[in-house]
Formats: sequence, C-alpha cells, structure tokens
Amino acid sequence: MLEKLREEVYAANMELPARGLVTYTWGNVSGIDREKQLVVIKPSGVEYDELTPGNLVIVDMNNNVVEGELNPSSDTKTHVELYKTFPTIGGIVHTHSSHAVGWAQAGRDIPCYGTTHADYFYGAVPCSRNLTREEVDEDYELNTGKVIAETFRSRELDPDAVPGIICRSHGPFTWGKNPAKAVYHAVVLEELAKMAMYTVTIDANASEAPKYILDKHYLRKHGANAYYGQAGKS
Amino acid sequence: MLEKLREEVYAANMELPARGLVTYTWGNVSGIDREKQLVVIKPSGVEYDELTPGNLVIVDMNNNVVEGELNPSSDTKTHVELYKTFPTIGGIVHTHSSHAVGWAQAGRDIPCYGTTHADYFYGAVPCSRNLTREEVDEDYELNTGKVIAETFRSRELDPDAVPGIICRSHGPFTWGKNPAKAVYHAVVLEELAKMAMYTVTIDANASEAPKYILDKHYLRKHGANAYYGQAGKS
Amino acid sequence: MLEKLREEVYAANMELPARGLVTYTWGNVSGIDREKQLVVIKPSGVEYDELTPGNLVIVDMNNNVVEGELNPSSDTKTHVELYKTFPTIGGIVHTHSSHAVGWAQAGRDIPCYGTTHADYFYGAVPCSRNLTREEVDEDYELNTGKVIAETFRSRELDPDAVPGIICRSHGPFTWGKNPAKAVYHAVVLEELAKMAMYTVTIDANASEAPKYILDKHYLRKHGANAYYGQAGKS
Amino acid sequence: MLEKLREEVYAANMELPARGLVTYTWGNVSGIDREKQLVVIKPSGVEYDELTPGNLVIVDMNNNVVEGELNPSSDTKTHVELYKTFPTIGGIVHTHSSHAVGWAQAGRDIPCYGTTHADYFYGAVPCSRNLTREEVDEDYELNTGKVIAETFRSRELDPDAVPGIICRSHGPFTWGKNPAKAVYHAVVLEELAKMAMYTVTIDANASEAPKYILDKHYLRKHGANAYYGQAGKS
Repeated sequence: MLEKLREEVYAANMELPARGLVTYTWGNVSGIDREKQLVVIKPSGVEYDELTPGNLVIVDMNNNVVEGELNPSSDTKTHVELYKTFPTIGGIVHTHSSHAVGWAQAGRDIPCYGTTHADYFYGAVPCSRNLTREEVDEDYELNTGKVIAETFRSRELDPDAVPGIICRSHGPFTWGKNPAKAVYHAVVLEELAKMAMYTVTIDANASEAPKYILDKHYLRKHGANAYYGQAGKS
Repeated sequence: MLEKLREEVYAANMELPARGLVTYTWGNVSGIDREKQLVVIKPSGVEYDELTPGNLVIVDMNNNVVEGELNPSSDTKTHVELYKTFPTIGGIVHTHSSHAVGWAQAGRDIPCYGTTHADYFYGAVPCSRNLTREEVDEDYELNTGKVIAETFRSRELDPDAVPGIICRSHGPFTWGKNPAKAVYHAVVLEELAKMAMYTVTIDANASEAPKYILDKHYLRKHGANAYYGQAGKS
Repeated sequence: MLEKLREEVYAANMELPARGLVTYTWGNVSGIDREKQLVVIKPSGVEYDELTPGNLVIVDMNNNVVEGELNPSSDTKTHVELYKTFPTIGGIVHTHSSHAVGWAQAGRDIPCYGTTHADYFYGAVPCSRNLTREEVDEDYELNTGKVIAETFRSRELDPDAVPGIICRSHGPFTWGKNPAKAVYHAVVLEELAKMAMYTVTIDANASEAPKYILDKHYLRKHGANAYYGQAGKS
Repeated sequence: MLEKLREEVYAANMELPARGLVTYTWGNVSGIDREKQLVVIKPSGVEYDELTPGNLVIVDMNNNVVEGELNPSSDTKTHVELYKTFPTIGGIVHTHSSHAVGWAQAGRDIPCYGTTHADYFYGAVPCSRNLTREEVDEDYELNTGKVIAETFRSRELDPDAVPGIICRSHGPFTWGKNPAKAVYHAVVLEELAKMAMYTVTIDANASEAPKYILDKHYLRKHGANAYYGQAGKS
C-alpha cells in the first residue's frame, strides 16, 4: 500500500542522520497521500539503521493505524493535525537539531538577519508559546499541532512562505510539498539557527535585515517572477 | 571469566571514540556482575585501538584486581563506590566530553530547558560540589564517588531518573542498567549540555521549561504509562 | 570553448562542498579569460553532484550568455561587475559560510585580531553597507557589485591585499588571481571569521593586534621581500 | 642523515591535519638530535600531502641549512631558540588551531578551570606579551622565541610541567620530549582552549579550580608518585 510514498518517506527519514540532524531516534518524517487521506510515518523509537520502507506505519486522519506492525511515532497526532490545518503541504519533519533547539529553549523567534534566511523563510521563524497544563494533560501531541496552527493563524503567517516553526521548550517542525522538501527545510532551518546564534554572539543587539532586501531574496526564488535556478528551461 | 560482560564493556568502551566523546584515553566504561560482585573496567591509560575484551581488568568490591595483567582505570574506586551506592545500575561511564565539562568547570547544574533533556533526565543534571582538601588527600577517587552519592542523597534524587552527574571542576559520570545504556546516557548528556550552552548563548536569562511539560515528556518514555517506542509489542 | 578555464572553474566549485563551505547550492565560483573578456560561471541552482565542466555557463561582459544551455548563477552580474572593477583578479567565489555570514549579519568588519588574519588580509575584512531600496529595486545583483566597489574605493583598499569582503545582511565574496586562489581565500576568510568570533566570545572588548605585527606577517608572505614558502627556489 | 628522526618528525607533522589542527600549511613540527645538535623541521609553505621524510630540512643551532633542497619553516628561528632555552625538550609544534588562537587573540592566559587541564598543564597556559616594534623589526622569529623564554623565566614556569604557550596575537607553540609528545600536547591544548571557552560562555566569571585538586590530578599522572597508566608494569 502506498509503495511510492513509503519509499519517499523512507528516503527522507534516512537523510536526517546523514545530514547530522538527529542523534539516536530523535526525529521523524511523514508524508501524506491527499487523495487517499493516509499518512506514512516513522515507527516510534526505531533506530534509523533498522528502518525500511516496509516497517513504516500508515495511519488515517483519525490517527488510527491502517497498516503496520509497529506503533507509529509518538508525534503522529501532531503530524496529522498539521496536515489538516495546512492543506498544501505533503511532508512533515520533526527533529531536535541542536541550534534550532537552542532558540526554542530560549523561547525566541529566529530573526531574519540576512539573505540566507530570506531565501527560504519569509520573515522570522516563529517560536510558539508553551502549551498550558490543561493542553498537556488533555492531549499533548494533538495540542502541539493545535498550538502551531494557532501561531500561524494569530500571526497571519502563510505556511508555504514560512515552512517551519520552533515549538517552545521543544524543537523544530518543518514541512514542504513533499517529504524531501520538508527535510530540505529542516536542514535550512538548522543552518539559519546556527548563523543567527553566531550573529547574536558577535553583536547581541544585531538588528534584522531591511524588509526590502528580504523581499528581494525571497521573491527572486519564489512566486511568479522568480528567476533563481532553472525554472522556465525545458 | 565473565566473557559476556567483557564483551559488553569492550563494545561500550569502543563506542566512546566512535561517538566523539573522548580524546585519547580520556574516558572509561565499566560493567558489574551483581551476582558475582565483580566489576569489569578499562585498564588505565590504554589507547582505544589497543583495547580488547581480554585486556580489560576485573576487580572486586574492595578494588582488588581479580583478573588482568594491567592496572585498572585510575577512576576504579569511583566506579565501585557508585555500584555500592546505586544498587540498580549495571554500567558506568566517565568522559571529558567538552560541553559537559564546560558546565562542570562553570560549576553549574545543567538546567532542564526543554523536552530533549526531559526525555532522559528528570530535572536538572546536578553539578556536585568540589571535594575538600581533606577528601582529596585522603582518597581522591573514593571520595569522588562519595560526593556523588552525597549529592543524590541530599537532593533526594533517584539515580534511575537522573542517570548522570557532572562533577565540579572535572566532568561527567553517567550510568544505566548496563554498559550500553550508560554510554547512551553519556551521549545524551553531552547533547543536552551543548543545547543548554546554545540556549544561554541566545538568552543568558533563559528559564527552565514548565514542570508539567517536563513531567509529560519524561513519563511518556518512562514508567508504567509510557507510550513512546515499541513497548507492549510482542 | 575555454576548456582549460572550464576545468579550473569546475574544480574550484567542487572544492566548496569538499571544504564544508556550502550547504546545498549556496555558493558559486567563476573565472575570467581576460583576453577574450569571457566569464565561466556555475549555473543557477544546480546541485554540486550534477555539475560538470560542460554545464558551466559562459557569459560576456554584458552578462549575455555566450555558451551554455542553463541559466547562469543569479549572482552573475555581481561577478561581472567585480571583474570590471578589479582588473587584476581572475576568479571570484561567493558562499554563505556560516561564521562569515555571522559577521555580515551583525554588520561588523572582521577585525584583524592576529597573524592568521594578517597572513592573508592586510587589515580588517570590510563589511559593506546595505543596499538602498532604490538600488535593490533597480538592479540588485549589479548594485551588489557596485557597493563592493564603492567600499573598496571609499576606504582606499587594495583588492590584491584585501581579497574579499562580507556584504552586509548577506555573506562573503572573495577573489584571487585565479579560481583556485579565490576558493583558498574563501576558506581562509571562514577560518578568520571563526577565530574572530571565538576571540570576542572570550573577550568582548578584544583589541586588534598592533599594526607593526600585522605588517610583518603580511609582508613576510607577500611583496618584494617575502620570505615565506619556496619562492626563489628553482 | 638522521633517518629515524626524519621519520618521527614526518609522522608528527602528518598528525596535525589528521587531528584537525591545521588548515592548509598553518603548522609545523620539528625534532632535535641533542647529541648532534641538529634540528629536523618542515619546509616552509609545503602542503602536507606533498610532505615526505626526505623533503624535511635539517638545520644547525645557528639556523643554517645542513641538508635539504627546500627553505625551512619561516618559524625555524623560533624553534631553535626554544631548543636552546629548554634543554629537556625534543620536539616542538606550532599551529593556528582555532580555539587556542581565540585565547591568544584575546590576549588572555587559559585559566586552569578543571582536571582535564590539570592532567597535562600544571597551571594556566600562559599568554606571552606582544613583541615590541623593535623586536619585530630586528628579528621577528628569533624574538618570538626569546619572548616565550622571557615569559617562562619571569613567571618561573617549568617547561616540562607547562608544555606550551599561546603567543599573543598569534597562536600556540607546544613541546615535549619528542615530536610525538609535542603533537599530543598541541591536541590537548586545543581541547583545553575549547573547554575553557565553553566555560566562560556558560559563566563569564567562572573561577579556576582549587589548587589542591589541580595538584592531585597533575601529580597522579606525573612525577615520582604517579599512578595513572601502566607505569611500573613490565
């Protein structure tokens, strides 16, 4: 079932340790088949070198296992909630990459200090609020997804233009049109978090780059008038 | 003698350089056979590429060598004291991993800033006090173990829920139910120490995560109601 | 066309990921044939493992593609402007290497704190001003080159003695007499940026090294009386 | 000539890039034959992958080349001066390893914050003063050696107990009874410099470890009553 998506989700998961984003099992990738309304996700607590396309778990939009012997990632409800909230995304990544976690633990948005950031994230990477005690007690993983959704709604952010978030006291979630793009954004976010930490190390009062420069960089890569890369070449 | 434990302790020792936790010979792993009351430990000052299961040293609970041609680790008395104090542990690791040493040298507990920490350590990683001059003169390595024990006793910490410590002006000791788990906790502690350093770099006044979030993360992985991983699957 | 220069530019591009200076496609190298007034440059957005000497793009001094199926780097106009401004250079590199970006995002020149720096850069690595909104709107990449030129002109810097710059809110450009030397300077600049960040971490008020020591180091490697290396040996 | 020493110096030089201590040609190792009063040293500016035991250069105690086609390291006079000043040493290393350079550029001794440091350096790693303009003009490399000697003399330091220094605005020199031990101390010094930087990042006002703990660690590894390692085993 969903053989192609299994392969994509497997390859995306394996890229996390290859890119140095995870220690042990501290990360997971999922992908969704929007037509069938099914999500393929990493099983919980399984080491990457024991992962295969075949032992990934398939769940439906009610978080029920549809195919698979193993328990799905403990973060499954967060993934499913994000797929429901952001209808254009096709893959989601969660890691504990160290610089992104540093910002999440400090409870600060990652400011858009420069063009590396603006090339991929249109504005600061938001840091969500902590869940309340009631939200944790009620359904921690589901409410993690709901608080991410709330952050985007209340700040009027576009998940296609801001393809990730850092969850306060926790770590990053990123997404993209497919699992590979979601991993790409996880790598980018960790790099941005590192560069931003270096920036505040050099000048604790560094200011964000001018808005018109960020616009320029974001828009030369994205949207109708983009001219970066080989778009338009046959 | 103790062939299986020798293999475990050997494999655990070799994982230290593989995981980047030791430079030269700055680390050691031991394991205990609780029934026979014997400890298998790395010989002192031997390079990792000269280590074999066969040249590990076996000592009894009075620190006497029972089997082995080489001197046991100079930290042997610390290990043995910890085995006596913490009856549930089966393996101990000592390293000078650099971020954990940074906190130990600063003399600060590693605060529980987030969920990566809470997944493994239930509360701050304690930093023990410096030994007194008398304790150093009397028996440095034995008293290092006694001060660790004192720290856990006076703070009422559970060594199963807080599987490690940083010894002031020195470095980390971690433990686990076997040598492999002790190494796992040494890797985790170094990651936590790094993330916590990044956190204070980004915000020197960062505060610990709310207690109810830490509870949630620790308890979803540990204890009777844990649901992380594949526990319960046959 | 320009087979030898294609090989040089290809090799120089491939050294960027090998030296850890680029993530994904965040960098590019060009080289110029001064006689023919043609520039060989990396195509835009092409992964390094898909790069070949043959798919590099050749442009003229008006930024028109003379040979090549692909779009040239989006930074092409910056490169061409620098070749026009600095007549002695033969290769140019742009990266987003993380420590250099840290300084660029903080908007600070990299001070000449010591001899490692002075061996290659005769004085601080300048940080250019941000482009104005008008400059961005008019022609971003061309004006990036013009602002670099302005920085060197207004500060009376010699591009042979200061073989690079960090562009504010953006990242480093370096150059050299050929593409290989330009990459060499990109590696050096990243090392200097890292060491300078460490220096301000240890002492936020660190001062530059005395001018006469910097003179000594720069001049023992460069100029008529240089005595570093094997110059003068047949 | 001096075939065995050539092999030792060659192996020690090659360990510098293998241990990550040098970028390009930023380091050199020498060794001395005390009986013949000859020094084997790396040639100046030669890449490590072009180094062979045969192209090392042999100089006498007046810095004259006795054997070799290439120019000796530009730092040769510093090495020779140190061999004259410290009669017990047999090998010297100079690098620009990044954390040690950070302290040198900040102009600060590396405080002895803990036992990792005390295991190898008996007290702070001294940071020498800057050379005066006259010293630079007269003979930079010779006077670099003389200022190192002055630092040890004026502070009454024992070069066997403090096997290295950081030269202000420059970088580290380390030594040992042979070239391999000198490299060992270069690796150790870089690790100590890194850990000390982490310590001040976590607490800018961190204090040195108590003297009696440093004594304990240094003396359990060195001197008549040392008990670390396998000394005394046949």
